[in-house]
Amino acid sequence: MADKVIVYNMVGTFVFDNQLKVVESQKGDKRSELLSRYKNAAPPNEKQRYKLMEFFKDKQYFSSFRNQCIKITKADIKNAVDEAMLIGQAIASADELERVINMLTKRLREWFALTAPEVERSMEDNRKFVEAVLKKPREMLLKEVNTDDVASAGKLLSPEDVKAYQNLAWQITQLHNARSQQESYIISAMEKSYPNLTQVATALVGARLLQHAGTMKRLAKMPASTLQMLGAEKAMFRHLRNKAKCASPKYGLIYNHPVVQSVKPKNRGKMARILADKICIAVKVDYFKGVFIGGQLRNMVAEKARALE
Amino acid sequence: MADKVIVYNMVGTFVFDNQLKVVESQKGDKRSELLSRYKNAAPPNEKQRYKLMEFFKDKQYFSSFRNQCIKITKADIKNAVDEAMLIGQAIASADELERVINMLTKRLREWFALTAPEVERSMEDNRKFVEAVLKKPREMLLKEVNTDDVASAGKLLSPEDVKAYQNLAWQITQLHNARSQQESYIISAMEKSYPNLTQVATALVGARLLQHAGTMKRLAKMPASTLQMLGAEKAMFRHLRNKAKCASPKYGLIYNHPVVQSVKPKNRGKMARILADKICIAVKVDYFKGVFIGGQLRNMVAEKARALE
Repeated sequence: MADKVIVYNMVGTFVFDNQLKVVESQKGDKRSELLSRYKNAAPPNEKQRYKLMEFFKDKQYFSSFRNQCIKITKADIKNAVDEAMLIGQAIASADELERVINMLTKRLREWFALTAPEVERSMEDNRKFVEAVLKKPREMLLKEVNTDDVASAGKLLSPEDVKAYQNLAWQITQLHNARSQQESYIISAMEKSYPNLTQVATALVGARLLQHAGTMKRLAKMPASTLQMLGAEKAMFRHLRNKAKCASPKYGLIYNHPVVQSVKPKNRGKMARILADKICIAVKVDYFKGVFIGGQLRNMVAEKARALE
Repeated sequence: MADKVIVYNMVGTFVFDNQLKVVESQKGDKRSELLSRYKNAAPPNEKQRYKLMEFFKDKQYFSSFRNQCIKITKADIKNAVDEAMLIGQAIASADELERVINMLTKRLREWFALTAPEVERSMEDNRKFVEAVLKKPREMLLKEVNTDDVASAGKLLSPEDVKAYQNLAWQITQLHNARSQQESYIISAMEKSYPNLTQVATALVGARLLQHAGTMKRLAKMPASTLQMLGAEKAMFRHLRNKAKCASPKYGLIYNHPVVQSVKPKNRGKMARILADKICIAVKVDYFKGVFIGGQLRNMVAEKARALE
C-alpha cells in the first residue's frame, strides 16, 4: 500500500497522507505538476473514497465546484455552436420569412381588392402581384385585364390611400429580398462546410436534412434508409402502426431534390432510394473530413436518373 | 281604365296597349322620356303583371337583365368602399405587421443567442434588442453586460455569419418603420374623415371601434353602453350566461384610451362609461356630418378624469 493518496477533480489536485490529511494541494482544473511529483501516490480505495466525499463537502470547495461547473458548461455550449446550428437558424429564418410574406401578401390582396378587384383576381402569382401593385398605376393594371375605371367594381383612391397600401407592398418585396439573401448564405455556408453533401443533395435539401437531424454527427450515423424517409416520420409511423391500410412512404425531405423531381412519378421511390444511398456516403465523408468525392457521387446519381427518366 | 300600360325596369321602359303588345320601348336603366310622353299610361294591374312576366321571360331580355344586374352590383360594391373600410385595412395591416415583427424577433433572439446568450437574456425590450444587434458589435454588447469573449457561452462568428443574422435584424427595423407609417396613415385618415370621433376617442382607439363595428353607420346606431363593451363580447356573454360566477366586463376596446389608463384602477369602469358616452355623441355627429364639437367633448371627458384620478 502506497503511503500517499492522490485525488484529482474539478476543484484541484490533492495529496493526502495515510490518515487522509492534506499534504499538499493545488487549485484549478489543469493537471498539476503534483501528479508528476507524487508518482507513487495511489488513487483512493473504496473506503478512502467515502471519507474523501466528506472532505469535499466542506464549504470552501462549494463555490469552486460551482464556478468550475459553470465554466465547463459554458465551454460546452460554446463548442456546441457549429456551422450546422448556424445553418439551421438560417433555414428556420428563411421559412419564417416565407410564412410572413404569405401573411402580408394575403393582407395586401384584400386591401388592393377595394380599388381593383379584377386585377387582384387575375394575378395568381404572389410575387408578381406585389410587384405590379408597387410599380404600375391602377389604370394600367385595369387596362391589362380589359377593364376600365367605370366598369371596375373597385374605387379610385386618393394618393395618400394608395401610398398606404404601396408601403405594405414595398415591405413585402424587401422581405423577398431578405429571403433570397438568407438562401445565398445557406448555400455558401453549406458549400464551405459540407462540400460533398452539398454537391450530392444540393445546398437547400442538404441543409434541411441537417436541420432535421440536428447535428452532423447524428446525420452521419443514419443509414441510407433513414435518410430517405427523413421528414416523412408521420407517414412512416402511420404505416408501421397500420400496415394494411397505409403504404410506406417512399421519400421525405429528399423529394424536393431536382433529380427526384426529374424522373417519372412511378420511378420516384426508386430514385429517392438511389439518391439517399449516395447522400449517406457524402455525409459520412464530410463528417470524417475526407477528400472531395461529391462530383463522382453526383455523376453516379445523374446517370441512374437518366435511366429512370 | 287607361288605354296604355307602362312598365319601367332594369332592361328599359316599355309602353303596351290594351292587348299587351309593345307600342314603344327604350332600353337602358335611365328613366326615359317615354314616362313623360305617356303621362296617362297606367302601371299594369295584377292580371297584366302576370302576363308581362311571361313577356320578359323572352330570351332577348335575359342578357340585358344579367348585364344590368352586374352593373348595379358593381356600383354597389364600389360605393361600399368608404374611408372606414380603408382604415380597417390599415389597422388590420398594422396588427399583422406587429405579429410579424414578434415572430421574426423571436427567431433573431434564438439566432443571436448562439453568439452572445448573455446579451440576449439581458435585453427584454424587443425593439431595443433588434437595434443593438444591428448597430453594435458583439464585443461592445458583451462588455455592456459585464462579460468578455472568454467568459461568454456564445461563440465568436465569422463576418458572413454575422451578416446573415444582421440581415434579419435590418428587416425587422424596416417592418417597425412600416408599422409606424401605417399608424400615421390611420391617424391622418381618421382626422380627415371623423374629426369628432378622433378628438374624443383618439385616432387609434377610434379606428379600432370603427373596425369592430364594420361601418360608421353601425357604429352611429350603437348606444353608449354597447360602445363601452365593444371588443369585450366574449366576457359580456360569459357574464350573461353565468351571472353568479363572472362579473360583467367594464370596458372593451376603449380600455386602451389614455384617459381610462390615467385614472385609478377602481375608477376605470366609471371612466369608461363616461368616455363611451361622449364617444357615442361624437360618432353620431361625424356620421350626420355635423359641426366640430370634439374639442368640447374632449374637455368634458378630461374634466371628469381629473375628478377620478
